[in-house]
Amino acid sequence: MPSEAGKGGLSYRDAGVDLDKAVAAKRLIGELVRSTHGPDVLSKIGGFGGIMRAPAEGSDAALVASADGVGTKLKVAQMAGIHDTVGRDLVNHCVDDILVEGARPLFFLDYIGMGKLEGGVAEAIVAGVAAGCRDNGCALLGGETAQMPDFYDPDEYDLAGFIVGVAPADAGQRPGAHRVRAGDALVGIASDGFHTNGYSLLRKLFFERLGWGLDTIVPGPDVPLGQMLLAVHRSYLAPVLPLIQAGGVRALAHITGGGLPENLARVIPPGQQARIQRSTWQVPPEFQAVMRLGEVAEDEMYRTFNMGVGLVLVVAPEDELGVIERLRAAGEDAWGLGIVQAATPDGERVRLL
Amino acid sequence: MPSEAGKGGLSYRDAGVDLDKAVAAKRLIGELVRSTHGPDVLSKIGGFGGIMRAPAEGSDAALVASADGVGTKLKVAQMAGIHDTVGRDLVNHCVDDILVEGARPLFFLDYIGMGKLEGGVAEAIVAGVAAGCRDNGCALLGGETAQMPDFYDPDEYDLAGFIVGVAPADAGQRPGAHRVRAGDALVGIASDGFHTNGYSLLRKLFFERLGWGLDTIVPGPDVPLGQMLLAVHRSYLAPVLPLIQAGGVRALAHITGGGLPENLARVIPPGQQARIQRSTWQVPPEFQAVMRLGEVAEDEMYRTFNMGVGLVLVVAPEDELGVIERLRAAGEDAWGLGIVQAATPDGERVRLL
Repeated sequence: MPSEAGKGGLSYRDAGVDLDKAVAAKRLIGELVRSTHGPDVLSKIGGFGGIMRAPAEGSDAALVASADGVGTKLKVAQMAGIHDTVGRDLVNHCVDDILVEGARPLFFLDYIGMGKLEGGVAEAIVAGVAAGCRDNGCALLGGETAQMPDFYDPDEYDLAGFIVGVAPADAGQRPGAHRVRAGDALVGIASDGFHTNGYSLLRKLFFERLGWGLDTIVPGPDVPLGQMLLAVHRSYLAPVLPLIQAGGVRALAHITGGGLPENLARVIPPGQQARIQRSTWQVPPEFQAVMRLGEVAEDEMYRTFNMGVGLVLVVAPEDELGVIERLRAAGEDAWGLGIVQAATPDGERVRLL
Repeated sequence: MPSEAGKGGLSYRDAGVDLDKAVAAKRLIGELVRSTHGPDVLSKIGGFGGIMRAPAEGSDAALVASADGVGTKLKVAQMAGIHDTVGRDLVNHCVDDILVEGARPLFFLDYIGMGKLEGGVAEAIVAGVAAGCRDNGCALLGGETAQMPDFYDPDEYDLAGFIVGVAPADAGQRPGAHRVRAGDALVGIASDGFHTNGYSLLRKLFFERLGWGLDTIVPGPDVPLGQMLLAVHRSYLAPVLPLIQAGGVRALAHITGGGLPENLARVIPPGQQARIQRSTWQVPPEFQAVMRLGEVAEDEMYRTFNMGVGLVLVVAPEDELGVIERLRAAGEDAWGLGIVQAATPDGERVRLL
């Protein structure tokens, strides 16, 4: 592109930043954003900040916030040229992170750092983010799409999301480790594949070591590799929030990086131990395929992947069957996973049996 | 590192993700985060979400949110091996973005995508973010540091921030275009250098075209290039929020990417025009140096850089002198920049005279 400054002069476009394309992308993105706005959104597109009415409960309410990325699952999306599923992954991951604190989502913001605003990639990402927001009833209140030439390759991007929700300010009304007691039951809900964790290992195994392509059929799950790897991270909001609001859930863990051992440990109080019976569920075929093809140790598998369990609920023993029944009625694959009891002498918070 | 899986088996560490280092970094970062927490923060470090008491005003209040990055200023920080200033840049940028909507910051979250958790880089970034949060009286409520091997080079990272503040829900009590009238006065406050905009052009000019190093003294400003480029983005919270809360500010613009023309236009209503007298201030020497050395057209300079104006306030004409006086008493370099009047026939929102 010729520089406005004439020969020799530098313009921002010469430096790789195209403000006109940025304006066009912004307009399209604005329409996607508006599709998520309800009556509590007070701002129009194009302001310096997004504005939403605060929860009516005032200081009886707490704001619950979380930031997250999609990790190197993005690389798979970029290989496949499919950019909307990672947007939905991101929203659902964030929704689940604040759901386990007892929060209903209010609004979401995204950050995209990318090399070049071209080929509708940013628009496709935001279309996925907006769809995720609509699915979870939260407003996409703002975001930033940064053109960073010389930083990202032209077809490369990173993606981060930020969510804010509302829960009771009274800790006694929120789930958490402080409400967990010996004898409590653990209820698992099935994941949809790898969600957003373990992708560095998955990419190394399938693309580097095995040299497979996205179309290679993975024996076991018997689906193309790309489809298996891009399955969308589940949101558990719809089936689980009503159970939390009814008071029937003492704590929850979202099974992300670190797997069952590390994530469930976050809601097991000192002196207690979650004992998980691995015999209560069959590890889904995609995890079995990774373990077999990569000769990955079983411990390493459980520390890296969700192994088929996306969310764990800790409930009073007398509530276990009712909770499982309600989850199944909502279409979830839910089951009794184990119990909480006094810790063994080593003080371990989570034991896999 | 040997794999736990024995020969041939893949572990997450082989794939470039070191969970032990991640745990150590998390602990240090936890201490930095805690240093920003006041009594309204209800969560402990290590939960799935950060939790803060909602504003007492309930639905009379609005939550104002913004997401932003630092742009390719990060590359300069990475060249210089200085990682805390960009953390402060990020917080201050976000604080200013919601300040112009009339908001006091409540909390902040950060996202760091990086190649390798090594050499204390993540800790230095978060130390800067935490310092920025303390300076602006907001809680660092959470964040995500993602190790993304094969995505970022080992010494490379991207950084995004997300802020939530509180303002009145009643638009009549918030600044904005809807309160701007013909005859209003424009008051500018000086920037501290380039803030976070125009760095693709700056890097191209100084490092590629001129081949300078970080220690080269820039003629004009007469400071080393690295120091000039890493000057921290100003927060205008302390001097400006009291003026907004006293009702004396009709609208504000934070001068970021797009410069005075694009950012001030965001708060000028249809049919009006902001007329900026360039003779009212001297463009600081760092911008003059860029224009001269890069042979950059003046229009391009004003569309790319803040040109010495970090924030613009729109005030009633009778309030102009009092506002300038109060800003100067608070130590700011503030001056009358121009006026708002009926638009010229071309409908242009901002004209530089």
